[in-house]
Amino acid sequence: MRRSVFYVSDGTGITAETLGHTLLTQFDQMTFCQHSLPFVVDEKKVDEAVKQINAAAKADGTRPLVFSTLVDDALRARLCTCNGAVFDFFETYTAALETELGVAALDVPGRSHGMGNVRTYSDRIDALHFAIQNDDGATTRNYPHADVILMGVSRAGKTPTCMYLALTYGIRAANYPLADGDFERGSLPMALEPFRQKLFGLTVDPERLQQIRSERRPNSHYASYEQCALELRAVEKLFRRERIPFLNITQRSVEEISAQLMQLAGLERRI
Amino acid sequence: MRRSVFYVSDGTGITAETLGHTLLTQFDQMTFCQHSLPFVVDEKKVDEAVKQINAAAKADGTRPLVFSTLVDDALRARLCTCNGAVFDFFETYTAALETELGVAALDVPGRSHGMGNVRTYSDRIDALHFAIQNDDGATTRNYPHADVILMGVSRAGKTPTCMYLALTYGIRAANYPLADGDFERGSLPMALEPFRQKLFGLTVDPERLQQIRSERRPNSHYASYEQCALELRAVEKLFRRERIPFLNITQRSVEEISAQLMQLAGLERRI
Repeated sequence: MRRSVFYVSDGTGITAETLGHTLLTQFDQMTFCQHSLPFVVDEKKVDEAVKQINAAAKADGTRPLVFSTLVDDALRARLCTCNGAVFDFFETYTAALETELGVAALDVPGRSHGMGNVRTYSDRIDALHFAIQNDDGATTRNYPHADVILMGVSRAGKTPTCMYLALTYGIRAANYPLADGDFERGSLPMALEPFRQKLFGLTVDPERLQQIRSERRPNSHYASYEQCALELRAVEKLFRRERIPFLNITQRSVEEISAQLMQLAGLERRI
Repeated sequence: MRRSVFYVSDGTGITAETLGHTLLTQFDQMTFCQHSLPFVVDEKKVDEAVKQINAAAKADGTRPLVFSTLVDDALRARLCTCNGAVFDFFETYTAALETELGVAALDVPGRSHGMGNVRTYSDRIDALHFAIQNDDGATTRNYPHADVILMGVSRAGKTPTCMYLALTYGIRAANYPLADGDFERGSLPMALEPFRQKLFGLTVDPERLQQIRSERRPNSHYASYEQCALELRAVEKLFRRERIPFLNITQRSVEEISAQLMQLAGLERRI
């Protein structure tokens, strides 16, 4: 079974997509053909959206699902003339929230992913530059300024987690790759010793690591099951011996790893 | 006026936070004190959440807003015993969607930010590594593999946009900083010439650039209004002369810049 889905927004479309994706994951017996229509800010744009939705309805023979976040009542009413099932997020909740809060909503579009203040913007960018500069053990001299230092073997998810922590939470995260030499030593790498309290480990099941590494270098020693299993056994032994908290990322997305890590490492968002 | 707000989720909390933030931006005459409670997956965790919500209700003297995404009916019912106004996104929309689609929802928690398949995961990570390797004009030899190459003066938003494009859309974005030498030449930097079709410019108002640069290096020549205005005039002249599409990022968040850029550059998401 196949359905067309449209995300219609007066802003980036992020909220409409988040809402729709989340709901649709509960219907995975269906196939959804998804279209994003951001920045629908005037009547002309709404009419174009209606035209696209109606064309899909005709082609599919069923009416499309339309997830929308249109703040403006008139634009929303215009969208609702389409031949689709419209779920508008503001329409659903605004009245209930106005009652609960005892004040009227502003009805100003495009606020949810707007710029914010300069300070928050700069903190986010600085955290991102920090993550880039301190990626993959490039240098350890900035570790005094890190909020957290991730450790793990190659392709255990360190880099994407650092970038996501920076963009989403404004956290300054460095990462340090562990390789054969580090396991043989029987102690923490010297450069990390003064920063024990900031260390956090990432690990992964060997089958999964083999898959991930094979996407990068198929049929290599690096991607072999044996090598993956060997490195992972050694790294988990090191985490346990040195009492470094760690998280297994198998079956977890970057979003989940980051949210779990914030909790487990006791970090507070900075933005 | 001050209200406590809780985001309760059986997963990362990203959906609950995104949806709640979006609604609350329409009520900015209020002050919200926000708390995220992710990974609420069993009765014990729900009871802890209820306890925290009730404590806030007592301290505030008004009931908190609770935005939740709990798939499990029993856990949701248990949460609803709290002394807060609970808005659950699954409860709101699931029945209507089931009717519209003619099938039952799965009711499996934590799916919306789950891992996805290995290929999508790898594409996302590869895009991120690409953005890091090709940040700030570090090298131009990978430009044949870029989906887009961002150009702009220092602190015009190139780096965060590249990282966000990689994480969110799986787009391979490089970035090239423009400085005095590039403006005087009167032609595109040689290294960029073969990749004209991939170029996209970012610009910003001089007042804003001055603010952003001042956060980094206060009272410097680099952050002075005159220097910012000079560079921006030159860069916009270059974009116009070379017919490079560009976007002014003033008042736009990284999310907005990225969504706009996807549209204007005609890019399709890869994940």
